[in-house]
Amino acid sequence: MEEVAIIGASMTQFGERDAWLADLLSEAGSECIDDAGVAPGEVEHLYVSNMASGEFEGQTGVMNVLAHDLGVMPAYSQRVDQTSSSGGAGVLAACQSVASGTSDVTLLVGGEKMTHRTTAEATDLIASITHPVEYKHGVTLPSFAGLTARHYLETYDAPREALATVAVKNHRHGVDNPHAQFRKEIDVETVLESPVVADPLRLYDFCPITDGSAALLFCPADRAEEYTDEYSVVTGVGGATDTHVVHERENPSVMGAVRDSSATAYDRAGRGPGDVDVAELHDMFTILEVLQSEDLGFFEKGEGWRAVEEGRTEMGGDLPVNTSGGLKSKGHPLGASGVAQAYEIHRQLTGTAGPRQVEDPEVGLACNVGGFGNCVITTVMEAAR
Amino acid sequence: MEEVAIIGASMTQFGERDAWLADLLSEAGSECIDDAGVAPGEVEHLYVSNMASGEFEGQTGVMNVLAHDLGVMPAYSQRVDQTSSSGGAGVLAACQSVASGTSDVTLLVGGEKMTHRTTAEATDLIASITHPVEYKHGVTLPSFAGLTARHYLETYDAPREALATVAVKNHRHGVDNPHAQFRKEIDVETVLESPVVADPLRLYDFCPITDGSAALLFCPADRAEEYTDEYSVVTGVGGATDTHVVHERENPSVMGAVRDSSATAYDRAGRGPGDVDVAELHDMFTILEVLQSEDLGFFEKGEGWRAVEEGRTEMGGDLPVNTSGGLKSKGHPLGASGVAQAYEIHRQLTGTAGPRQVEDPEVGLACNVGGFGNCVITTVMEAAR
Repeated sequence: MEEVAIIGASMTQFGERDAWLADLLSEAGSECIDDAGVAPGEVEHLYVSNMASGEFEGQTGVMNVLAHDLGVMPAYSQRVDQTSSSGGAGVLAACQSVASGTSDVTLLVGGEKMTHRTTAEATDLIASITHPVEYKHGVTLPSFAGLTARHYLETYDAPREALATVAVKNHRHGVDNPHAQFRKEIDVETVLESPVVADPLRLYDFCPITDGSAALLFCPADRAEEYTDEYSVVTGVGGATDTHVVHERENPSVMGAVRDSSATAYDRAGRGPGDVDVAELHDMFTILEVLQSEDLGFFEKGEGWRAVEEGRTEMGGDLPVNTSGGLKSKGHPLGASGVAQAYEIHRQLTGTAGPRQVEDPEVGLACNVGGFGNCVITTVMEAAR
Repeated sequence: MEEVAIIGASMTQFGERDAWLADLLSEAGSECIDDAGVAPGEVEHLYVSNMASGEFEGQTGVMNVLAHDLGVMPAYSQRVDQTSSSGGAGVLAACQSVASGTSDVTLLVGGEKMTHRTTAEATDLIASITHPVEYKHGVTLPSFAGLTARHYLETYDAPREALATVAVKNHRHGVDNPHAQFRKEIDVETVLESPVVADPLRLYDFCPITDGSAALLFCPADRAEEYTDEYSVVTGVGGATDTHVVHERENPSVMGAVRDSSATAYDRAGRGPGDVDVAELHDMFTILEVLQSEDLGFFEKGEGWRAVEEGRTEMGGDLPVNTSGGLKSKGHPLGASGVAQAYEIHRQLTGTAGPRQVEDPEVGLACNVGGFGNCVITTVMEAAR
């Protein structure tokens, strides 16, 4: 695939928002167009990453509402759904539209409006993505997370506190992110004393329910400088599925689709895990960040928890993970999250991350997980050369 | 965009089906893989065109269920939603995945399960794709169709019977399609004496509510003969939006997105409307087939009704339209329809359309309409040379 540049980026405040999805998408989309300095009429394709606007708020066809509200007609519009990895899938779709030559200027806007629903409603709605053979037994994603955490801790003789440390780290990072839902430090005790959700995991092991939107503007890499000096380049992106029936997986502590999607992304970029300077991982549950850090090849299997405890994935460590605060403190508006991950990497690679800037990163990686690793998109991005 | 070949095609029986969406998708998907003679493991990307499985049957993430059920893991999967043009959007997405070099073998499966809902529920659900500023006034797509038909008939001094003749023609064509929901001839009186739905349009001016699925398998055009001698080539595909607020359009009898999307498709294919030998148009309402036949450039504006009356769009006419029976008699399972249109053109171009075969067509066209022309995808396909 030809290299594709990101020439504009934006995100809204994440959290409880008194606005409908169409308004959030419009806010992020118009800010992104302004960021790149293009006119709405220059946009040729518009992708909207969104999991469930029909289910959450009864609005179907939201991509056409957005095309109208942004005034990008007659731009082609399409909604991209890959459940909680819809944002990463949108990055792949946008890159394909540019690299195939069908669109020279592609706008991607991801978003979800969730907080008007109760936690029980939202959890059940999200559980409806699971395979019917598991859903009918009442499984939810948090229950999978609890079972997996137990398996991991026992198999690799890891301390429970290591998972709590993931949450502590990401909350600390989130303090410096003005768009984050939570900007407050917590400590290991906060996690370990919070209510049990799915034993051994507790409330602070889980990301919140969030409203928000993020947007990116893409063009062919060799044309980026016509628009801006402040751009990053997607050099490799890969997507992969794992068994949709989670209990069929051989080792519950291995995320097969993380391995497969990153192998593709690394191969396309001509990079390996050792090249990555900064990464955004999908910490919907603390255990998932640890698993991804291993299955992406950053650390040996069973050693990810140790890297967290040693501070290697903290700001200032040798591979800072979730400098944005991650899903844990920044929030997780499903369709927006993969876009917001790429937004953070773009900010890091263009040196515009402000107080959370990592020193001169050249290669960044985003890993966006759908379901319980049922589909994963890994994206390798690089600083302009 | 590089040319992309279609090397496999299938569709299920359309109609009232005693099966869930995932089963229908699986039925079409596995038959398509068999048709092309590839192994499931060769599929690299899987796209599922579907408008509203969450809203219709509470199943979100159906593309991952399908990846699992077809056994194509670790193939990347994604759902493509462009409301009732989701199928055409899937063709565009699949072509982009191949032409960008990210996937050499891409499977597209479109489908919808609708008939378990009442007509009132389905109509309201479909109306939820309209812009909130119109939806809150109670508009539905049939009501737009009635207003547009009235405008067209008055503006162009066309007889009401011409619209009925569209339905009569498509029902006649559908008799020869074993997958069609309705295989019975009707006459103009059947239409004109059926109950009023949105004056002047009556029940037989409208497509039915349908369950069904269709699938296509894509690869780079220069590799098609490695798989089969029976293939067609997508030479041009374009998508475009119109104002999502329908009442803002200057002339309600002009489908701007049909004009814009076909201009792109013709340009990419190096073809014009005069080159088209067979076409599948989106006759969700009889008036729409007439408007599209004009806005695609087949006939002058205001003259499409005359072409129907003269039999020019019938089997045996100079430009047969909807040889499959169209949405009107074949049925309209939303996400499947654009895929089924391309299926029909593929059958025509490969000379495998059986009793409904047009004589030696070289160029075919499919026009798939989302909402009330809010987004349109036009695809130009050609016979292998």
